[in-house]
Amino acid sequence: MRKLTASVALGLALCVSQAATAKPGDPGRDKVVAAIKADHDSSIERLRDWIKLPTIANMNLNHKEGAEYMRQLALDAGFQQAKVVATDGVPGVFATLDAGAKDTLAIYFMYDVKHYEPAEWSSPPLEGRIVDRAGEGKALIGRGAVNQKGPETAFLTALRAFKTAGVKLPVNLVFVAEGEEEIGSTHFSQIVTQPEVRAALEKAVGIIIPSASQSVDGAVTLSLGAKGVVELQLISSGEKWGRGPNKDVHSSLKASVDSPVWHLVKALNTLVSEDGQTPAIDGWYENVKPLTARQKEIIAADVAAGSEADDMKVLGIKHWYKDEDYLTSQYRLAEQPTVNIQGLVSGYTGPGGKTVLPGRAEAKLDLRLVPDMTKDEAVSKIKAHLAKRGFGDIEVNVSGGYSPTQTDENSRLIKVEQATLAAAGIPMTMSARSAGSWPGVVFTGEPLKLAAGQFGGGRGGGAHAPNEWLLIDSSNPKVLGFDGQAILYADFLYEVARSTGRK
Amino acid sequence: MRKLTASVALGLALCVSQAATAKPGDPGRDKVVAAIKADHDSSIERLRDWIKLPTIANMNLNHKEGAEYMRQLALDAGFQQAKVVATDGVPGVFATLDAGAKDTLAIYFMYDVKHYEPAEWSSPPLEGRIVDRAGEGKALIGRGAVNQKGPETAFLTALRAFKTAGVKLPVNLVFVAEGEEEIGSTHFSQIVTQPEVRAALEKAVGIIIPSASQSVDGAVTLSLGAKGVVELQLISSGEKWGRGPNKDVHSSLKASVDSPVWHLVKALNTLVSEDGQTPAIDGWYENVKPLTARQKEIIAADVAAGSEADDMKVLGIKHWYKDEDYLTSQYRLAEQPTVNIQGLVSGYTGPGGKTVLPGRAEAKLDLRLVPDMTKDEAVSKIKAHLAKRGFGDIEVNVSGGYSPTQTDENSRLIKVEQATLAAAGIPMTMSARSAGSWPGVVFTGEPLKLAAGQFGGGRGGGAHAPNEWLLIDSSNPKVLGFDGQAILYADFLYEVARSTGRK
Repeated sequence: MRKLTASVALGLALCVSQAATAKPGDPGRDKVVAAIKADHDSSIERLRDWIKLPTIANMNLNHKEGAEYMRQLALDAGFQQAKVVATDGVPGVFATLDAGAKDTLAIYFMYDVKHYEPAEWSSPPLEGRIVDRAGEGKALIGRGAVNQKGPETAFLTALRAFKTAGVKLPVNLVFVAEGEEEIGSTHFSQIVTQPEVRAALEKAVGIIIPSASQSVDGAVTLSLGAKGVVELQLISSGEKWGRGPNKDVHSSLKASVDSPVWHLVKALNTLVSEDGQTPAIDGWYENVKPLTARQKEIIAADVAAGSEADDMKVLGIKHWYKDEDYLTSQYRLAEQPTVNIQGLVSGYTGPGGKTVLPGRAEAKLDLRLVPDMTKDEAVSKIKAHLAKRGFGDIEVNVSGGYSPTQTDENSRLIKVEQATLAAAGIPMTMSARSAGSWPGVVFTGEPLKLAAGQFGGGRGGGAHAPNEWLLIDSSNPKVLGFDGQAILYADFLYEVARSTGRK
Repeated sequence: MRKLTASVALGLALCVSQAATAKPGDPGRDKVVAAIKADHDSSIERLRDWIKLPTIANMNLNHKEGAEYMRQLALDAGFQQAKVVATDGVPGVFATLDAGAKDTLAIYFMYDVKHYEPAEWSSPPLEGRIVDRAGEGKALIGRGAVNQKGPETAFLTALRAFKTAGVKLPVNLVFVAEGEEEIGSTHFSQIVTQPEVRAALEKAVGIIIPSASQSVDGAVTLSLGAKGVVELQLISSGEKWGRGPNKDVHSSLKASVDSPVWHLVKALNTLVSEDGQTPAIDGWYENVKPLTARQKEIIAADVAAGSEADDMKVLGIKHWYKDEDYLTSQYRLAEQPTVNIQGLVSGYTGPGGKTVLPGRAEAKLDLRLVPDMTKDEAVSKIKAHLAKRGFGDIEVNVSGGYSPTQTDENSRLIKVEQATLAAAGIPMTMSARSAGSWPGVVFTGEPLKLAAGQFGGGRGGGAHAPNEWLLIDSSNPKVLGFDGQAILYADFLYEVARSTGRK
């Protein structure tokens, strides 16, 4: 969603329905493109097969099977070795492909998908049915279609095409995959920090996760960073508090019995300013860096190209916070850390009322972090803040999260991405900092310090929602279909090789 | 529960397994007692049949059928006329029995029952199975067994016995019943204020609802009053607020989008003191009357007879509010109005977290009121308090409630109840003011100003819970079984007549 990206239009909308012309230094490109096209039906079948095996981390669904399937997909696409890597949670996969090239590119996959409710879908979520999408072409409907099995399959199709065409891959590859992306990548650092994996990643120019993110006018947004996030539950209970009841009791007792719910409400009240917006946790802003002039420039360009009315309509709002103008609100969106309540649950939650004094209350929070805040800093500060005010008994249950991520606009990876899109005639925008989060800091932070980002052409939607879709055959000349996506990845690999020697 | 009553032991534990001896002025009592005993099996069958027809107000279950059944039960017991009275909610029943006596007693019944989950019961909740209850005797298990169909059936059995024995009833009766007691008697005043009903009630000495409330040591508590209650839901929504989203949106938007959940937390925070206990709503204490010396005396006697350790164990608490001693906490329980949170519900309420910024948040509250606060006063004051602080958009959805009720310890009704218990050798305690609530104010308030209270012998438990029970055959010599309950009601009617001329 545009609101999450704050991007800037840098390219021009061109017709990209034909593959871009090969450049000098792209040996065998024609053969690779032909192989991708010849592989079309089989590629879609491979995607449909993969969709049939959903891995859902927090439902304990297909952890082992999903990892093994991922490993096999990597081997089939041409990786020379691929292994399942155990973690304290869902296992990951590590694979390498040594093409004898000068440069190494790293690839990050997620093989898990979000939970789904079949009743809410127009076709079975694991079927991968191909349907008409008005004005856009033929789309595949299925859980994982766009997030992220579809774009990932397109990337693997590109690799497979080099192999079947007998064309040498222009770069070496290091591959890491996880099965816990949808629950906050809780154990992903255990994979990345294994000595063998870390040593392989350290050689890379940068790392991408395949993504189909063209807008309807064809533009691709390159994200330069994202806020970090801490997901946690604050739990107040009579049991831990040592006051109030250890279970729900009759509400008439309130006068002489302390209430764990009120205890939580009073604790929550201290976390933000009176208008419910600005974090008021002790020391919260100590490491917050303001936006740079360049970041503001990128955001301003995006706002100039966007539609405030459309954005407000999508969100169902009439005003930005403080009635700020569009630009100010988008600066704020990128710049400000937040304390959000995702949910409240205590006592009786059905229709009407019930005369109980609950023994337990829970607030589900997410804290969005900006550079140079860190996850550990945030967790220790909220704990200290609560303890100092007499709320030290309130359990702070951290269920996931990671620090913010930022990649240099002038890094070789971003330049290669820009060059690839430009050669393909795909308009490009940039996002200074996504307000949404992804665990890029595993790569961009210490010790790897890799450039990292999502990348790809093509288009889909409905991530985390019913009827998730990916465009397979595009009737919109501005947007790539599945083959176009795969060809763009092949061109990207050529472009990485072509950039050898650049920093 | 003891905690809810603050009662004082005034009687002595005597053996009540034999019916008390008839007094002069109880013509035909032997025949009535014999008729009650002869009717035992049929009475229990009538109770079981009644239990088979549950009326549940907020589930729209058996409203019409339950009212008609109630009407027929009244006619069968000897009322000369009985009619269903329509309301804007569940209908009530009004009946009269003119015995040509000097005095009139009013009777209040509820014919609705609380919701039940059959899976949680040891026998089907509508079966009325008779089971052994260790150390107590034979008990009937069923929804409504003690709350209130069981004691009400015992009362009707007493009336029926006068009829079948051919003994003139010592008092005239006025009968009012409702089917919404379990949802706060929302429309009950519509029944009581009908001119015909009101005129009939105005003649009464007082009004009782049958109740089986003997403790295991045989004591019956006479309640002299109860706190009032307002049940309401505070609902904050982007829609009503005109700020924030009108649905759940992605949590990353928090920095530039207002949050209806934080809005609610900030509003809640203003309602009570920093320790989450004392109501801080503007003007809340204006009409609060302190306890009288006599009320404190009654509470102190109860505390002296009670066990603080047992009470704390039942509640699962280790301290009273403010670490107050037992007596102070029980004064507070009777004296202080409260603002209790029954439940919180907003956004994502499942396990772990989910990255949403909710468009709606709800807090379910009950406000307990003490004399001379009124329900209308409380509702208007909380609305004004919220509006004054910028929370006027938060919906105050009042789902039920009524003002406090209080009956004079020296009223003829209470004196008659005390005399009845004393004659039966049943120990008696008094409750100065229950912290729990019942809609007695409909009778004790303007315009009727009747003495009112629960009354009866016998014993049961599990009201609102699975396996609700009523003792039918008591093996505990201190506690009445079903026949004993009915006989006590017969004696109560004689006692009302005997008290003629007293004020």
